[in-house]
Amino acid sequence: MLHKIINLTVRDVRFPTSLEQHGSDAMHSDPDYSAAYVVLDTDCGLKGFGLTFTLGKGTEIALSRNGPFSPFKHTSSGVFTACVFLSEDQMLKEGYPAYTTSCAWLGYPDQQLKQLCTDALKSGWTKFKVKVGADLEDDVRRCRLIRQMIGPNNTLMIDANQRWDVDEAISWVSKLAEVKPLWIEEPTSPDDILGHATIAKALAPLGIGVATGEQCHNRVMFKQLLQASALQFVQIDSCRLGSVNENLAVLLMAHKFQVPVCPHAGGVGLCELVQHLILFDYICVSANLSNRMCEYVDHLHEHFANPVVIQDAHYMPPKDPGYSCEMLESSVKRHQFPEGDVWKLHQNK
Amino acid sequence: MLHKIINLTVRDVRFPTSLEQHGSDAMHSDPDYSAAYVVLDTDCGLKGFGLTFTLGKGTEIALSRNGPFSPFKHTSSGVFTACVFLSEDQMLKEGYPAYTTSCAWLGYPDQQLKQLCTDALKSGWTKFKVKVGADLEDDVRRCRLIRQMIGPNNTLMIDANQRWDVDEAISWVSKLAEVKPLWIEEPTSPDDILGHATIAKALAPLGIGVATGEQCHNRVMFKQLLQASALQFVQIDSCRLGSVNENLAVLLMAHKFQVPVCPHAGGVGLCELVQHLILFDYICVSANLSNRMCEYVDHLHEHFANPVVIQDAHYMPPKDPGYSCEMLESSVKRHQFPEGDVWKLHQNK
Repeated sequence: MLHKIINLTVRDVRFPTSLEQHGSDAMHSDPDYSAAYVVLDTDCGLKGFGLTFTLGKGTEIALSRNGPFSPFKHTSSGVFTACVFLSEDQMLKEGYPAYTTSCAWLGYPDQQLKQLCTDALKSGWTKFKVKVGADLEDDVRRCRLIRQMIGPNNTLMIDANQRWDVDEAISWVSKLAEVKPLWIEEPTSPDDILGHATIAKALAPLGIGVATGEQCHNRVMFKQLLQASALQFVQIDSCRLGSVNENLAVLLMAHKFQVPVCPHAGGVGLCELVQHLILFDYICVSANLSNRMCEYVDHLHEHFANPVVIQDAHYMPPKDPGYSCEMLESSVKRHQFPEGDVWKLHQNK
Repeated sequence: MLHKIINLTVRDVRFPTSLEQHGSDAMHSDPDYSAAYVVLDTDCGLKGFGLTFTLGKGTEIALSRNGPFSPFKHTSSGVFTACVFLSEDQMLKEGYPAYTTSCAWLGYPDQQLKQLCTDALKSGWTKFKVKVGADLEDDVRRCRLIRQMIGPNNTLMIDANQRWDVDEAISWVSKLAEVKPLWIEEPTSPDDILGHATIAKALAPLGIGVATGEQCHNRVMFKQLLQASALQFVQIDSCRLGSVNENLAVLLMAHKFQVPVCPHAGGVGLCELVQHLILFDYICVSANLSNRMCEYVDHLHEHFANPVVIQDAHYMPPKDPGYSCEMLESSVKRHQFPEGDVWKLHQNK
């Protein structure tokens, strides 16, 4: 059954997340989470949806006609992807384990951290990520606070968003070892494979792994990170890598090297997209949940037609057809940049 | 003396080089050499010129407002750069050694290769690069032909433009060892540092070095290539790396590792730009000409206000102020895409 694509629309959708410091980290002090959003119409009424996550200005590159981060790559896969992933009973019952990044963005004051931890613990969360890397004393205080809140048996990860040089990363993270982080994420330039390997080797005796991959642009970079033992957690990103196929290549390589995949998510729609990939990884590739979990950030889901379903800190498998990235038309209209109501209002302030 | 920038213009300039197979290699069968071209006007009449080389469609990315390859990075340096480089007597008298890529593009028939070699030898060229990587038998024939034409004492390099996997590169190049190439350029994915290291190690006993760098996007990648002994020739590119500063960082690292720098050039204006960097390298950093030479491709220079001067296969130091990338207004007008006469004519065919 062949259908024809009869129309496509591309829109620049931006959410003013910087206003409340959601998404703030050591590299991005005021990001507006955004998406280049594509809709394909076919002659049979079926639609395809695709998006690429950006921090706003990046959308202008994504939407340049031949941009390397083209959302078109993702769109066509949306029409047929979902049906593959819905077979496994265990996932349907229990879901895929998740961790939360929503409690500890860098720009949140301590009182807010505490409140968010308390709420998250009540909702069943057991794994927490803290942003670090701007100021060491501040990091020690905040990490201690979180560890105190979540107790010794829950999991804590830290994320520096590329802020350090190699030696700096080793000494800085060593000083945070007391809070027993499972991993340090993006300790240095995401291109520095050998630097990550040096860091991983130095931190191994402290029981701290290296996690990276959200800025990793192709399978060749992941191949080397694995070959060099430069990472202990593979963080694929559904939008950074070009297409589902490139992600699948990385899943297979990670399996060969027996390194767990813990996808990057959050942003705009990344949770919606990557849940498909991580369920595929479990059902078809790794069949293993040890040290595996998918990132979750609790915002902007309300703009999607089929938002992720989180139950007891697990991603529940999506049951709707598609790649879960259809946005609500009302949301797109309001947030379209620069003509949507949200941005007109913002500019008039 | 502070001056104000009062205007800037950006234009998409493309040359239909694919018509005659200039620039054809194992990855690019029909490139149209192009540039995103920027002119800054100041309130004192001084102008700044900048460009980024592309293969046509890439200009659309370069010109997206926040593109990673923005030509603006290069423009401001043009106003003050030239005065630094004009001090050394030796360079003024002898120039900087060059090699030619103009004789052996992949799409040229044998008769044309022969004629071009004959002409180049007459003009004093002693170093020649041959494109390879599409078909092994064809490569053997063409490389033998060139070696025969240039004799045993001249230098021959081969360039695969990323066509191979790691093992394939080793076996393919081994079969070309009989023509005694000085280097194999871009044997595999430009991101594959560890792959290049494997290739370099395997080819060292054959006396063949690995050259790469024209697709290398930052100093972090070059740092690793040097750390891993993955290359024996550093090929900086004046447009790929962001700004003069990033290039200088690579020159300094190459000096630390004692690896010669042999810049990538050709394209549109790359020879004009990179001659400044390589003269700086000689005069201020390496002070060494052993195994050092700058690529030269003999086309599109006629469109520049101050084209490179080649004498006896050497780059003669530029004596005009600036970064040598001002284009002739008549050339820009004719080649502006898609409205220039050259492209209107082309589309009407």
